[in-house]
Amino acid sequence: MIVRALTAADREAVRDMLADCGAFTEVEVQLALCMVDDGLNGDYTLRALESESRLAAFACVGHAQLTVSAWYIYWICVLPALQGTGVGRMLQAHIEDIVHEAGGDRIVLEASGRRDNARALRFYQDAGFAEVGRIPDFYRPGDDCVIYSKILAGGGGSR
Amino acid sequence: MIVRALTAADREAVRDMLADCGAFTEVEVQLALCMVDDGLNGDYTLRALESESRLAAFACVGHAQLTVSAWYIYWICVLPALQGTGVGRMLQAHIEDIVHEAGGDRIVLEASGRRDNARALRFYQDAGFAEVGRIPDFYRPGDDCVIYSKILAGGGGSR
Repeated sequence: MIVRALTAADREAVRDMLADCGAFTEVEVQLALCMVDDGLNGDYTLRALESESRLAAFACVGHAQLTVSAWYIYWICVLPALQGTGVGRMLQAHIEDIVHEAGGDRIVLEASGRRDNARALRFYQDAGFAEVGRIPDFYRPGDDCVIYSKILAGGGGSR
Repeated sequence: MIVRALTAADREAVRDMLADCGAFTEVEVQLALCMVDDGLNGDYTLRALESESRLAAFACVGHAQLTVSAWYIYWICVLPALQGTGVGRMLQAHIEDIVHEAGGDRIVLEASGRRDNARALRFYQDAGFAEVGRIPDFYRPGDDCVIYSKILAGGGGSR
């Protein structure tokens, strides 16, 4: 398995993965694709995890505006057949390296608090993210926005 | 006093107000101006409060992506000489009307938890916003991101 930059040639595989992974609605898939396009234009950092010559996972991250050293994970998605195999964890660790090397010391992300998103929430909790906020019924009634933050060990501006 | 759409002719007054109001750093002023420009192109809803033929306050708000009925207040700024006179409160009430008329039922905003931003935080608390999250040291060490949410009375999707 290798982690590399995501390229325009991956776009179709990204779209299929977003649609098939079971975590995202059609609107979310469209927004994620928009951000992948913006990332290909330099607005975000995109990474692909490749396994046996095919896209196994991808992530879209970026420095948080107005902050000295905080980054956002906007999207992280793993091919359904490879969920639970450590692929997501490997990509997550790679993202932390990217953030650390860029001088970042903390990562923030927002996730749906829906019951059917419990697997993703557990993934972040197991990866060391702490819940720092919850906007009740943000996405729709019964669907909170859960805000997670992780402080990286030895980060550039940590205290 | 009237509330009207913000136009390109207000841009210079907006820039001066952002720089003079005492709440924003230079980088924040630049980002706010970028978003005002995007708003003038239709990406956000912009409102100006005019008093004695000059710009007294402005706001930049927008529907929150991926949500059914949540809106963000991105920026709200009051001319320093008019802070504490009810101008901000009037604009805030107008924003709530806009959101409600558009079918929105809740407003979310992020603010700096810095001690010198206490006046702004009190403004939101007095306006009925509740703290729903706090990302420690988000902007820089000692400068938390405080997340506020307000549920509008009689909103479209409220429960």
